[in-house]
Amino acid sequence: MKRLPERARYARADLYAVLDAATHCHVAHLVEGRVVCTPTLHWRIDDRVYWHGSRVSRMLHSNSAEGQVCLTATLMDGWVLARSAFNHSANYRSVMCFGQPDVLQSDEEKVRVLEVLTEHWFPGRWATLRPMTAKELAATSVLSLPLDMASAKIRGGGPDDPKADMGWPVWAGVVPFVHRLGAPIPDAPLKTGVPRVRVRAPGQFPKGSGVKEGRR
Amino acid sequence: MKRLPERARYARADLYAVLDAATHCHVAHLVEGRVVCTPTLHWRIDDRVYWHGSRVSRMLHSNSAEGQVCLTATLMDGWVLARSAFNHSANYRSVMCFGQPDVLQSDEEKVRVLEVLTEHWFPGRWATLRPMTAKELAATSVLSLPLDMASAKIRGGGPDDPKADMGWPVWAGVVPFVHRLGAPIPDAPLKTGVPRVRVRAPGQFPKGSGVKEGRR
Repeated sequence: MKRLPERARYARADLYAVLDAATHCHVAHLVEGRVVCTPTLHWRIDDRVYWHGSRVSRMLHSNSAEGQVCLTATLMDGWVLARSAFNHSANYRSVMCFGQPDVLQSDEEKVRVLEVLTEHWFPGRWATLRPMTAKELAATSVLSLPLDMASAKIRGGGPDDPKADMGWPVWAGVVPFVHRLGAPIPDAPLKTGVPRVRVRAPGQFPKGSGVKEGRR
Repeated sequence: MKRLPERARYARADLYAVLDAATHCHVAHLVEGRVVCTPTLHWRIDDRVYWHGSRVSRMLHSNSAEGQVCLTATLMDGWVLARSAFNHSANYRSVMCFGQPDVLQSDEEKVRVLEVLTEHWFPGRWATLRPMTAKELAATSVLSLPLDMASAKIRGGGPDDPKADMGWPVWAGVVPFVHRLGAPIPDAPLKTGVPRVRVRAPGQFPKGSGVKEGRR
């Protein structure tokens, strides 16, 4: 992915759209002076991004002990095939968020933000779940960052071949990625008669590809 | 994603399979003492992982100046819906590679490894492209890490609800993600009569989902 200035966007709407569409992110942080890049689930509420993990995670220990992190969420939208190897690229949407995370302290706050995560992907599900216990809340760490040091990079469209290459006799264009939900696979001992699951599709659809977000 | 020891695998075959299936990775590195998490394209040759970028990229400057990085590639395979919020999870495959990257020096070596990247996703394409120029090679930095400090984490299967929750009347199971290629979109001024493009599908398919890798 080539670093070009026109790919950097800072509009809040872009940050929100990418963070809300991405199913997961990677958090870079220091653990005993060593950089570590950890995949995790994130979600957004207003101007903050949240992520969580178990209390034993070295990521969370590290975050509180060693400070600053970089959380990056990336959606891959397709391959960009040019006439030369050099001009090959990928269409993607990516957000980077920098800062020193805040660790949520109160159980009430944890419950409130975990409900938002659950409802984001599984609308209507939170109220149907077995409620969280005090022990589970104690074992769940939630971190957050404000989006005041965040930026988005977006690449779309076809290859940027120079004029001199346009006549080269090779296929050129975009091969989009399609990311969708498969058919739900019920857990074997599932109680009969429960309502069908509702899951929001991940928003990893190339703009203009004709693929629509939907629910199943 | 809960950190459970049984999810950590170190078999070389697992490392290879995840790195080869993932379309992109995130590289964590230090830039002037600050951690940065950058999405980029990677590929594997034998026991090394490679990635690349333009010479002006701060990532590459940083790598040579400040040393150690962590490269993580993650494939999301599906949501795991449990009877409680606490036991919700995601099925995923992830590889973390640590070390101090080597920067490829010779043009011959760069051409050799860039051909492998191109052929990995677009079989047969390298020989059909307009050849790389000396200027393009000079503007292309390629880094690599040996896989001797790498590990894989894989989560598959259904929810791990405790026995006491099994009767809770809510849908539980897995909702797989399906990642496939869409129809190729030719670049507008495409020369007529060129052969059809061949692109390998990204290998982001849940095991046992019935979805097969293929070519289009």
